[in-house]
Amino acid sequence: MDPRTVYFSEIITLLAVVLYYFVMGARVGMLRGRHGVKAPATTGHPAFERAYRIHCNTGEQLIAFFPALWLATILFHGQYWLPAAFGAIFLAGRVLYMQLYTADPEKRTAGAFTTMAGILGLIVLAAIGLVQNWGAMG
Amino acid sequence: MDPRTVYFSEIITLLAVVLYYFVMGARVGMLRGRHGVKAPATTGHPAFERAYRIHCNTGEQLIAFFPALWLATILFHGQYWLPAAFGAIFLAGRVLYMQLYTADPEKRTAGAFTTMAGILGLIVLAAIGLVQNWGAMG
Amino acid sequence: MDPRTVYFSEIITLLAVVLYYFVMGARVGMLRGRHGVKAPATTGHPAFERAYRIHCNTGEQLIAFFPALWLATILFHGQYWLPAAFGAIFLAGRVLYMQLYTADPEKRTAGAFTTMAGILGLIVLAAIGLVQNWGAMG
Repeated sequence: MDPRTVYFSEIITLLAVVLYYFVMGARVGMLRGRHGVKAPATTGHPAFERAYRIHCNTGEQLIAFFPALWLATILFHGQYWLPAAFGAIFLAGRVLYMQLYTADPEKRTAGAFTTMAGILGLIVLAAIGLVQNWGAMG
Repeated sequence: MDPRTVYFSEIITLLAVVLYYFVMGARVGMLRGRHGVKAPATTGHPAFERAYRIHCNTGEQLIAFFPALWLATILFHGQYWLPAAFGAIFLAGRVLYMQLYTADPEKRTAGAFTTMAGILGLIVLAAIGLVQNWGAMG
Repeated sequence: MDPRTVYFSEIITLLAVVLYYFVMGARVGMLRGRHGVKAPATTGHPAFERAYRIHCNTGEQLIAFFPALWLATILFHGQYWLPAAFGAIFLAGRVLYMQLYTADPEKRTAGAFTTMAGILGLIVLAAIGLVQNWGAMG
């Protein structure tokens, strides 16, 4: 493993955690308070529901993203910056998704597809890396 | 760590990501479009709701599965194929759950229990591994 | 990396998986059966809804917690017990959250803030660690 590949993926991981937890998650809590949506309800005001779904959907994406990013980081041998580049595409996709969805849920498609492109790229790198590492088993 | 144990767990991790993201997740998006369930709603058509719950529930399982698989992979010293074997039971349980739940949510129990057996096995291996690695602390 | 730091984080990880999967998750399944909440519904009885939201919310927290704990474990150079100490604060916060929320959802705040303090501490350690490891890139 190239130490730069690992370092870049550590930065991407930290940014993803901060975006998910301290940007998206904090907004859910704030809007729950502002619009009086009492727990355990997860519906009741359109602005809260959008923030809640943005947070939920990003959590679902991260469940796939973190393992895909780190499989690519550990397994792939090639351009050292490629795993982090797909990670950056993923992050850009999530920020775009958040902005588009907040404005109008029907307009979120470009953000969703950018996210998907980032994860798809990482899965391809991980699969290539598994083949490249086949010899390490012998 | 036996390199085969690591390699097998990498394969299981990649398969789990593909199943969750490109099989289950893609179905939610497709059925949302087909049945006109407009975001941010997560209810509105039985087929969509089943696909959505299968995806959600599998995400909840993966949050426990990935750490349990990798704790077992890193910590357990014994049969090198055991962590991946419980991982394969988990994956089989998720495919079964998806098929049973899609046919009739009330019939999903066998899939849920197979999943749970996989995770329980990994947690036991991880706990044994923690005891086996106690000496490494000294 | 200090082997004690890694070992303590492995223990914290295993405890988090057991709490999430075998305490909180098992309660959702049990209350679904007891109160006859038929899948795919996730509402229908207050006790079930509370258990369901506790489990969901903890899953959302773990998506950020596991990466933050392991970034701090791998990257931070300082007191060897600090990452696990913030991990223990996170776990205590989740147990408190579960107890407070079960009694009355409006009283959950202290549990939510304790959880957040644990994750915030880990994110700060990870960020310090990234700066400390900058030289490893050269």
